[in-house]
Amino acid sequence: MSKPIKLAILGPGTVGTGVINLINDNLDELKRRSGRDIIITEVGTRRQRDDIDASIVQSDDLMAIASSDNVDIVIELIGGTTFAKDLIMQAIKNGKHVVTANKALLAEHGNELFALAEAHQVHVAYEAAVAGGIPIIKVMREALAANKVEWLAGIINGTGNFIMSEMRDKGRPFADVLAEAQALGYAEADPTFDVEGIDAAHKLAILASIAFGMPLQFDKVYCEGITGITLQDVNYAEELGYRIKHLGFAVRRDSADSDSSGIELRVHPTLIPQDALLANVNGVKNAVLVNSHPLGQTLYCGDGAGAGATASAVMADVMDLVRILGSDDAEGNNSHHVPHLAFMPEQLSDSPILRAEQMTTGYYLRVHAYDNPGVLADITRILSDAGINIDAILQKPAHDLGQVPVIILTLPVVENQMNLAIEKIEQLDAVTDKVVRIRLDELD
Amino acid sequence: MSKPIKLAILGPGTVGTGVINLINDNLDELKRRSGRDIIITEVGTRRQRDDIDASIVQSDDLMAIASSDNVDIVIELIGGTTFAKDLIMQAIKNGKHVVTANKALLAEHGNELFALAEAHQVHVAYEAAVAGGIPIIKVMREALAANKVEWLAGIINGTGNFIMSEMRDKGRPFADVLAEAQALGYAEADPTFDVEGIDAAHKLAILASIAFGMPLQFDKVYCEGITGITLQDVNYAEELGYRIKHLGFAVRRDSADSDSSGIELRVHPTLIPQDALLANVNGVKNAVLVNSHPLGQTLYCGDGAGAGATASAVMADVMDLVRILGSDDAEGNNSHHVPHLAFMPEQLSDSPILRAEQMTTGYYLRVHAYDNPGVLADITRILSDAGINIDAILQKPAHDLGQVPVIILTLPVVENQMNLAIEKIEQLDAVTDKVVRIRLDELD
Repeated sequence: MSKPIKLAILGPGTVGTGVINLINDNLDELKRRSGRDIIITEVGTRRQRDDIDASIVQSDDLMAIASSDNVDIVIELIGGTTFAKDLIMQAIKNGKHVVTANKALLAEHGNELFALAEAHQVHVAYEAAVAGGIPIIKVMREALAANKVEWLAGIINGTGNFIMSEMRDKGRPFADVLAEAQALGYAEADPTFDVEGIDAAHKLAILASIAFGMPLQFDKVYCEGITGITLQDVNYAEELGYRIKHLGFAVRRDSADSDSSGIELRVHPTLIPQDALLANVNGVKNAVLVNSHPLGQTLYCGDGAGAGATASAVMADVMDLVRILGSDDAEGNNSHHVPHLAFMPEQLSDSPILRAEQMTTGYYLRVHAYDNPGVLADITRILSDAGINIDAILQKPAHDLGQVPVIILTLPVVENQMNLAIEKIEQLDAVTDKVVRIRLDELD
Repeated sequence: MSKPIKLAILGPGTVGTGVINLINDNLDELKRRSGRDIIITEVGTRRQRDDIDASIVQSDDLMAIASSDNVDIVIELIGGTTFAKDLIMQAIKNGKHVVTANKALLAEHGNELFALAEAHQVHVAYEAAVAGGIPIIKVMREALAANKVEWLAGIINGTGNFIMSEMRDKGRPFADVLAEAQALGYAEADPTFDVEGIDAAHKLAILASIAFGMPLQFDKVYCEGITGITLQDVNYAEELGYRIKHLGFAVRRDSADSDSSGIELRVHPTLIPQDALLANVNGVKNAVLVNSHPLGQTLYCGDGAGAGATASAVMADVMDLVRILGSDDAEGNNSHHVPHLAFMPEQLSDSPILRAEQMTTGYYLRVHAYDNPGVLADITRILSDAGINIDAILQKPAHDLGQVPVIILTLPVVENQMNLAIEKIEQLDAVTDKVVRIRLDELD
């Protein structure tokens, strides 16, 4: 057996402890699969931990660990986008391979970090950064390597999916479920990143880059959270055969109209058909549906967070590195390995990213109007004049003061057209409130 | 850009043509991802094909192609377990890497072929052999490499799944749906391999080896097809909240009773909960559910057959090889790559494979009995005496001649105990027919 692979763990929190436990539990499996011993030599932590084996050096000098001669692979689990970035750069410059679960850092600074890693001929592996234990990074970069990705749609924030699942299953309002998610430890004390879709947008930016072969462009992701979703809309959607999920979409649009050709990067609540597998992924589970040519649709589902699932992804990256370490050719050239963003760095394209107004989706509209004769005709005429096709209409009985909610599902339309139509609908005398709109996708 | 990778396709049938089309359609994506040109130099075919580009050499001397200096990777798509084996051995001995979709050949002769490949330091890649376009081989061998697999359950025969889905959805009997499957080209003229579970058993043997790290043991897979499944049982299962799917299971049993400790390899119709995602994978789709520690359950779903899906898997293997070709170290040592059966060859274990009588599953029993007072008490007493726990009972109204079907769902029990109990039940005077039994799994 070759000499052991030496790991450093920076940040032994929930995930780091999960990695330590995984190595303890499965060391025999790891060795049988890799033919190498794998040992943790150093742990970087601000406070000394009594529950970590005495053979492992603990230190609060994380920068020193990132350049230690006693480390082959640095596992960065401290999170954040400042010190974590410095640590990873330090590790790279010292010839260490890096494994990280830090989606925010990669989404915002990945281009720079990957370029540095390529210059130093080391790898920055990041399976754990997207969808936890689901191996979607490996699948996209390697298993689908012969396909042209058309689009992907993912439940990539477990907290958001838990909230949407509970609202539907139990008829509980948003705020109530959010409080429970916080009590259960699913959501942070400040839940902004989860419920406003920012966490999902970080992950979507990464998925989109490896799907289409383009630089990371987190700043161009259209991002809408779930804070505005009401039980009323959840229930109307169900009545019409749909389910509202918070999804990230990356879509390649090759339209004859060059203004809507390009890549859509968007995160938003979406009505999808109830019988789609994705609609039946509940609780904190994550799932990613990828449509590629010639493979067609494939779905990947599992735990998107938690110590065990995330540790599995971190250690899958370690196993990949163990299997290729020492495989550089005589010139030390390892450029043949899987490129960081799935495509060769010099082959990354600058496909235009569409602005929100240029994006094409179906819509769920909820219009509140006085139950006057003619109001439905007025609304449908406005849509028809705008070239928007209606797929279904549901008019509920009048409730307070003779107002009726009218629910309309539309076929896909460019958002700009929908904006203009909604503006006109809201100007109708009989329409009493802002039009509620939620995007809709048939996933076909 | 390095020099092109040269492929030979042996057998340009449906899948081979799919590979040719994929390369034509996606060559730009392939090059952008691999940094190499990929060309088909030779095609082995019995009859000259006019639709293949004139730059590609066509020949009916497949053995010559398998050793041609003009070929880096041999793609074997002729099927069968005799000549295909000779071809692959020829290719290996001539230092070619091999990509194959031949599940029967690998399940029956994989141990020999992999050993030969290891001796010649080449790879035999086989993503397309199991579950078509779903990258389950890569997932099991690489993405789950840090996990200990506890069990897996898979819909791994599309024809069988199509038949079971149609029976349930449309209330059509088995023979009727089989005829349609044949007309649609899903099932072969001789459907034995599909409906008797042999094709699924080939795939299960492969999945189990890479899950647990043991030699291929197709001959030890317990195999039961779907020919005995009636609409009656499909409907009773639904009534009880279950759905019948034809599944392959590989299960690690660590029981205190050494007689039922070991590996279960089994393919059979199975009742699973209706709300499980696996129960909602319909038509010709395949899916594999893997439960591993510490990751937990992950599901992989997609097209299990067809030219496009299978070509995607074949070319994923080619892309893996392209990315590692030339990566051998100065000594030509490529042992660091992913081992054929996921574990280092010298680390494959000889875990005992359990015989059918030693396997543990829940059961659905359908007992036909005269509607006498006491018959239900007799049946339940026999089960109770055998230590078998009943989970649910459904007694339907009496139909012909005062006979009632009694449906019983049991908790998991070793088959041997169930055999003895059923023998006793069938000896009851009031019981008029053989007991129908179908296995049941909660997938938890």
